[in-house]
Amino acid sequence: MEIIVSKDELSKGVNTVNKAVPSRTTMAILECILFEATNGEIKLTANDMEMGIETSIDGEIRDNGIVAIDAKMLTELVKKLPDNDVSIKTENTIAHIKCGKLKADIPMRNGEDYPRIPTVEKDNVVTISQFSLREIIRQTIFSTSENDANKMMSGELFDISGNKLRVTALDGHRIAIRTVELRDSFDDKKVVIPAKTLNEVSRVIPGGINEDVSIFFTNNHALFEFDRTTVVTRLVDGDYFATDKMTDMDFGTRVTINRKDFLESIDRSTLFLSATDKKPVIMDISDNTLEWSVKTTSGAMSEDLEVVKTGEDMKIGFNPRFMIDALKVIDDEEVTLHLINPKMPCAIKDDKGSYLYLVLPVNFA
Amino acid sequence: MEIIVSKDELSKGVNTVNKAVPSRTTMAILECILFEATNGEIKLTANDMEMGIETSIDGEIRDNGIVAIDAKMLTELVKKLPDNDVSIKTENTIAHIKCGKLKADIPMRNGEDYPRIPTVEKDNVVTISQFSLREIIRQTIFSTSENDANKMMSGELFDISGNKLRVTALDGHRIAIRTVELRDSFDDKKVVIPAKTLNEVSRVIPGGINEDVSIFFTNNHALFEFDRTTVVTRLVDGDYFATDKMTDMDFGTRVTINRKDFLESIDRSTLFLSATDKKPVIMDISDNTLEWSVKTTSGAMSEDLEVVKTGEDMKIGFNPRFMIDALKVIDDEEVTLHLINPKMPCAIKDDKGSYLYLVLPVNFA
Repeated sequence: MEIIVSKDELSKGVNTVNKAVPSRTTMAILECILFEATNGEIKLTANDMEMGIETSIDGEIRDNGIVAIDAKMLTELVKKLPDNDVSIKTENTIAHIKCGKLKADIPMRNGEDYPRIPTVEKDNVVTISQFSLREIIRQTIFSTSENDANKMMSGELFDISGNKLRVTALDGHRIAIRTVELRDSFDDKKVVIPAKTLNEVSRVIPGGINEDVSIFFTNNHALFEFDRTTVVTRLVDGDYFATDKMTDMDFGTRVTINRKDFLESIDRSTLFLSATDKKPVIMDISDNTLEWSVKTTSGAMSEDLEVVKTGEDMKIGFNPRFMIDALKVIDDEEVTLHLINPKMPCAIKDDKGSYLYLVLPVNFA
Repeated sequence: MEIIVSKDELSKGVNTVNKAVPSRTTMAILECILFEATNGEIKLTANDMEMGIETSIDGEIRDNGIVAIDAKMLTELVKKLPDNDVSIKTENTIAHIKCGKLKADIPMRNGEDYPRIPTVEKDNVVTISQFSLREIIRQTIFSTSENDANKMMSGELFDISGNKLRVTALDGHRIAIRTVELRDSFDDKKVVIPAKTLNEVSRVIPGGINEDVSIFFTNNHALFEFDRTTVVTRLVDGDYFATDKMTDMDFGTRVTINRKDFLESIDRSTLFLSATDKKPVIMDISDNTLEWSVKTTSGAMSEDLEVVKTGEDMKIGFNPRFMIDALKVIDDEEVTLHLINPKMPCAIKDDKGSYLYLVLPVNFA
């Protein structure tokens, strides 16, 4: 293979696919980036066998070829290249790279040995703006959990019904649900996409409001397509949790509070909390005041906040980090806590049904 | 003790002395910051027994007192306080802190048990602008070494003679020497100041060109005084290395090169170098070209640079990181390498004698 590409194109391509290069693997060839210069197109691919990323870059092909170049070396090299055209010429086990007066030889492997990304039939599509997809991932992903005992928690449910996309994530302590309206209506479907893939997708997509992502589904795979890049991922196999019963409850007490003040205040309560001392923050809600307090072996802290309450007074304990995670990704100026009693979860949700964050209480007796 | 201070003053004071709180210590009280509210002054102190920092802050004293408050808790708390006046009221083993509607109790100890910073007589002074002191530390400190076998390498020689301050650092592989002119003349003196202290001093001083630091010396201590802060440090005991013979050599070959180009180019050579594969970069200097190359088990790299050379051709090996460290802190547009032969050190120095960086070569046969 012999190609000539600009430093910027090479850098963009390498950094896009790089996220699918596994950090640890027993298959040495996966530590490479596959370059395919064929049919007038230069395509880069990386694949960790769960997720694969493929992207095309502009450049001149002097000699067709399919080679696998060491990803770590190439990534580091590309960072430091001068702004200039880059020539990559491969020979046996070495990729000769030239840029300006710089010459570098880095190791490569036979491209034919590189495992191909599964082919995904493109019959079943959903289209969403890059911005919406990135937002909905950011607003839910913290509620997933890398749980080997329950694979389902390591993914997010994408539930498409008409022109609505509802995304659900839960980790056994809390649930995050976000709903967005799509511009068009699509066939109903429910799939569970690994959080790891969603994380990488949200990093790779530029995130424009006017740019779309097409998502194609088969029984076992999803394919994200945007710009000149595709990301293919395995789906998590099985039925997702039935969350309707957990979220459709009769919340008797409602507490409305300024979101930013609440967030900043609760954030202080984490000060004395360490990995070893996981004390809950206790919220004592009465009349128009929410007083939170926390007491650990290192010290004690409390603060009063003004609220508008309807329903009964309540004293209830929470892991403050779960509250913080939810409050951080809500854009509303005010939020409403929906409570039942100190043994039942608290819901932070809006009236429009665009978000619902459910947090289990912690016993503080 | 009972004091009221603004959040900003408290934050400034805590962050200034904090750098002298030891991260690990067998004396639990050193994990505290000493607060002294006496004679109408609020003074904060921290001390790791090598170095002590003391600073005064503005505030209202409602009740005199000397207390030692847990540094870690206080620092974390101060970061998260709302912008408001902070009241600190101590009682037995607890410091009650109030700020707006926030109340926090954090642990404290008896201030009388806190080890005092040594008193330094102020007869012997040197004055230097904060900017110059910070620059000269930055430009030399990377050549020191935390070497238990040779304590002297962990410090920098401050050699004052008339209106000149010469600072020397060396770690066995390289030497860094910087000379600055002071505005006034002072008594001659030579002291070795621990690099750790210099590091902290350069972080704490604001660094203004028109603001001065006064440095006072005794046989065993130095005291840095600026604004409302003093830093006291032990000196490294003993005679510093005699570096004159190492630096006054007859360099037959001179190579002048654009500093920025050289730095960016040599920086690329570190790409294939890992902690385990410490190959030198080999510089092949002939006519008007410097070609460096490096070859490791991971790959090979080379680049040509234009230079102006006088004297003999030369092929010599270096640890590229040592070159990079020196090139980074030189401000000149061009630098000149002074060489003798492949077994002798290379000097990067200017004609004015304001800097000299000496780097030992590495055998590459």
